[in-house]
Amino acid sequence: MYKIVLMRHGESQWNLENRFTGWVDVDLTEKGRKEAALAGQLLKKQGFVFDLCYTSVLKRAIRTLCIALDELDQLYLPVIKDWRLNERHYGALQGLNKKETAEKFGNEQVMIWRRSYDVPPPALSKESPMWPANQSRYRLEDPELMPLTECLKDTVKRVVPYWENEIVPKIREGKQILITAHGNSLRALIKHLDNISDADIVGLNIPTGTPLVYELDENMKPIKSYYLGDQEAIKNAMAAVAAQGKAGK
Amino acid sequence: MYKIVLMRHGESQWNLENRFTGWVDVDLTEKGRKEAALAGQLLKKQGFVFDLCYTSVLKRAIRTLCIALDELDQLYLPVIKDWRLNERHYGALQGLNKKETAEKFGNEQVMIWRRSYDVPPPALSKESPMWPANQSRYRLEDPELMPLTECLKDTVKRVVPYWENEIVPKIREGKQILITAHGNSLRALIKHLDNISDADIVGLNIPTGTPLVYELDENMKPIKSYYLGDQEAIKNAMAAVAAQGKAGK
Repeated sequence: MYKIVLMRHGESQWNLENRFTGWVDVDLTEKGRKEAALAGQLLKKQGFVFDLCYTSVLKRAIRTLCIALDELDQLYLPVIKDWRLNERHYGALQGLNKKETAEKFGNEQVMIWRRSYDVPPPALSKESPMWPANQSRYRLEDPELMPLTECLKDTVKRVVPYWENEIVPKIREGKQILITAHGNSLRALIKHLDNISDADIVGLNIPTGTPLVYELDENMKPIKSYYLGDQEAIKNAMAAVAAQGKAGK
Repeated sequence: MYKIVLMRHGESQWNLENRFTGWVDVDLTEKGRKEAALAGQLLKKQGFVFDLCYTSVLKRAIRTLCIALDELDQLYLPVIKDWRLNERHYGALQGLNKKETAEKFGNEQVMIWRRSYDVPPPALSKESPMWPANQSRYRLEDPELMPLTECLKDTVKRVVPYWENEIVPKIREGKQILITAHGNSLRALIKHLDNISDADIVGLNIPTGTPLVYELDENMKPIKSYYLGDQEAIKNAMAAVAAQGKAGK
């Protein structure tokens, strides 16, 4: 039996401002830092000792991981950062306020962009400074792999091979693994693990800064999964995520 | 021509308390955090963009690196943490106050332990909880490699092969590299780079939290090396390090 821990980053500045973030590198809020510290304390209380950590190349996830590791007194752990764990790329919507976008395009259109499995938001042009291939941090990556926009299906297509090829072999070696990532990269992974349908996965809301434990059998199939912490608070956090982006909000 | 940046961690709690630290995992002081931030700002002002970072598995070096990368807005960089870049292991002196140790054993004996090239301090026993092989973070390492004490010569014997086998190939690939480590692991590296004698290396004092740039030729021989920042302040910092551990201080 194997055990891994997944964690969505704490509240970011643009979660707070209700803007589409995607690959824009916004930082955690003070509340987000506290969530990360609390997550680290929860893991410590439960006696978690990790061997290896994965995160995206976006600072809200990296910082969440660093703060949690600091609380765990496990800052010494190897941390692998990979863009394949980045948030879903939100294309030309990146930077826009969710409520204003809903008022402009209608709730229905925004909910399609946010919650359909295979309809991507409007794409960036390759001239856009927001295209990752134009950014210094991705300069060693193949530009062809750098998204101009993504639907959740596109995110699944990069997260699942990374899981299969990079992370699963380390789990099989017996490594205890902590993954800190984003709402949609974690949705992509959970869809794969729990074999959730295209229709249902878009309704799954993952609370920020809350350790999610998966116990896996030898075929990497979940035996059970559960959030650590105050179960009532977790339910409220999931409802809050679901309510974002409604024009009436 | 290649260029690398070396940096000693900022002031730690035990630098401040004037205690022998070695592999004990003490944290930075507030001043140490400020030094790290200032170092990051200096590197940013000079336009440094790195590809890869190395540090020890000790939090004073890891945190120095994280703070500097945060200032550089390069938190996304890969960071490789390895015990071979740890501080010299100080054996049974770890935790003792330098001044008290000097009063007890005499300045001369302490200066031999601190500054001779090949006389190690008294060794730990293998039962000691301070022996790294008894500590969770080193549980995957070969216990035979875990030191009970080290003289600088011993530190050189682990730092230089790590440099040759792990870091140099990455430099040759064209990677821009930042290394954040410790007084003696950096002495070990600088001894090798600048071909400094056993007698002279022990007199080299490296200021905390100050980026040290090495420009290297194709044979990894230094063309020149220089500290970034206020040159007068750097001279004072080097003198302060040299003065530590004298009983009269």
